[in-house]
Amino acid sequence: MSSIEIEDIGFLSPESVYPEIKPHIHHTPILKGRYFNEILDAEVLFKCENFQKTGSFKIRGAMHAVGKKLSSGNIRAVATHSSGNFGQALAFAAGQYGIRCHIVVPKNAPMAKVQAMQGYGAEIEFCEPGTQNRERALQNYLQQHPDSVFIHPYNQKEVIEGHMTLVSELKIDGINPDIILVPVGGGGLISGISLASSHYFPGCTVIGAEPENANDAFLSVKKGEIVHLTEVNTIADGLRTSLGDITFSVIREKVREIITITEEEILLAQKEIMGRLKIVAEPSSATVWAAAKKIKNQLAGKTIVLVISGGNVDF
Amino acid sequence: MSSIEIEDIGFLSPESVYPEIKPHIHHTPILKGRYFNEILDAEVLFKCENFQKTGSFKIRGAMHAVGKKLSSGNIRAVATHSSGNFGQALAFAAGQYGIRCHIVVPKNAPMAKVQAMQGYGAEIEFCEPGTQNRERALQNYLQQHPDSVFIHPYNQKEVIEGHMTLVSELKIDGINPDIILVPVGGGGLISGISLASSHYFPGCTVIGAEPENANDAFLSVKKGEIVHLTEVNTIADGLRTSLGDITFSVIREKVREIITITEEEILLAQKEIMGRLKIVAEPSSATVWAAAKKIKNQLAGKTIVLVISGGNVDF
Repeated sequence: MSSIEIEDIGFLSPESVYPEIKPHIHHTPILKGRYFNEILDAEVLFKCENFQKTGSFKIRGAMHAVGKKLSSGNIRAVATHSSGNFGQALAFAAGQYGIRCHIVVPKNAPMAKVQAMQGYGAEIEFCEPGTQNRERALQNYLQQHPDSVFIHPYNQKEVIEGHMTLVSELKIDGINPDIILVPVGGGGLISGISLASSHYFPGCTVIGAEPENANDAFLSVKKGEIVHLTEVNTIADGLRTSLGDITFSVIREKVREIITITEEEILLAQKEIMGRLKIVAEPSSATVWAAAKKIKNQLAGKTIVLVISGGNVDF
Repeated sequence: MSSIEIEDIGFLSPESVYPEIKPHIHHTPILKGRYFNEILDAEVLFKCENFQKTGSFKIRGAMHAVGKKLSSGNIRAVATHSSGNFGQALAFAAGQYGIRCHIVVPKNAPMAKVQAMQGYGAEIEFCEPGTQNRERALQNYLQQHPDSVFIHPYNQKEVIEGHMTLVSELKIDGINPDIILVPVGGGGLISGISLASSHYFPGCTVIGAEPENANDAFLSVKKGEIVHLTEVNTIADGLRTSLGDITFSVIREKVREIITITEEEILLAQKEIMGRLKIVAEPSSATVWAAAKKIKNQLAGKTIVLVISGGNVDF
């Protein structure tokens, strides 16, 4: 049970984060399609983080976190555990700042993602799958390398602050959303977005989308404490993680509801996005379009932003 | 053997075509990726017609052709035969001008494309597969409907003129290409592009890309007359058609060479485009990236435009 108050965390404002990471990231485009507008009878805007550097939004948080850690102490490397997008993002961010990056990767991680991490210059350490194995391996590394600092993939203030900048771009684009729909995995993205949305768009509602087969965030909010599932089996591989104490606190306070999506709904939504928008979207991203269709009656006439979180699909 | 001289055809200039169709089409984006630049040691620009209305470049030609036909005579409908992208484009264009559209479709056409044509308001008439069956069915329809006019999918002056506008957009974007690589099917797109390229960029070279398994354009240029293949078996379904007399004449005069691509090369190139650019590209479009890799030694240090012709993939 979390007792963190988000005021106590002292998040920076998105305006103070955005200028520093702007030179390192893409201002990602908004795409729209008549097909989606007609189904919802609404203005549907897809914020396309599949076109972001390293193929997902994660670079926003990684870049800000590395920058902050570097400016606050004498470190020579960053380290994390990741099976995918965050590892790529951290490797890229470390490369931008000219420091080392060490990533503990479960043996069963997709080869394409491991190769991408290596391509960005990361040192890879393989471990057995499972959260405990990952954390133990990383702990060992950090003990042996005191000049290294751990960057958590989502449950970390600076990472969440970095993700706020996605909303800064909506503001710059002149968009005034009524509702933003965001995929929920560990909760880093939706935390950043809901904090920044409160800041820029006080009337805007943030809603999460999560696979029914990995509905830990939905259950956590319902129960009032973080729920860890023992079994998650979803095609949306980016959304298998549990919340952390920081992301749970933000979600509980800032997110109106979490919609759960079946595997069939995810696949259909992914097909619609790829077939109609002509972009490559991860299954995780497809949850938001599936969620929008489920709450259609709340959306008519409104401006809806759907966050396509990434496009790293293993072809 | 064609004896058409392209001067005798009297093509309009792209400047006179562009303003009229501009309100009806998207100015499609240019995408780039470090991955592609590094492989070719060149500036690689993808012109993304997958984001064009109806999902392919074909709307450019269809829109201009319908507009021209309407302004030159008393017609109430357009008709064509198509198994895919041109049918969608003509149906959309006819809808924009408020006239009927009749499309003869082979029974084995992809269901997604047939549904898209119907979605744009076309009347569909199914026929047995094969060029002769398609032409016969269309001929019957035209005889019974004298207020209808046939728009050829590629071997038609106005269609080719419409496709010129893709190059107008490169000019507007401030791009100054050394080489433009274009997929070759019936030759309408590469005809429009090579004519407009001569106009805007006299020093630019236009090169075609064609499946080895449907290498009729390559053979036609070599032999000096239009070659029809009896068997074509390629995943690049948009490139199975033979040249027409007009497109053959333009290609012979304006296109430097045609590179042929194996099925394996097409699939690998499509994987690279989808995996790295995060866009949905048809196999036909992937031929241009495969061709660029084959002539890598001619491209170093240059500005290369690769035309992604469409994104209509049946998921």
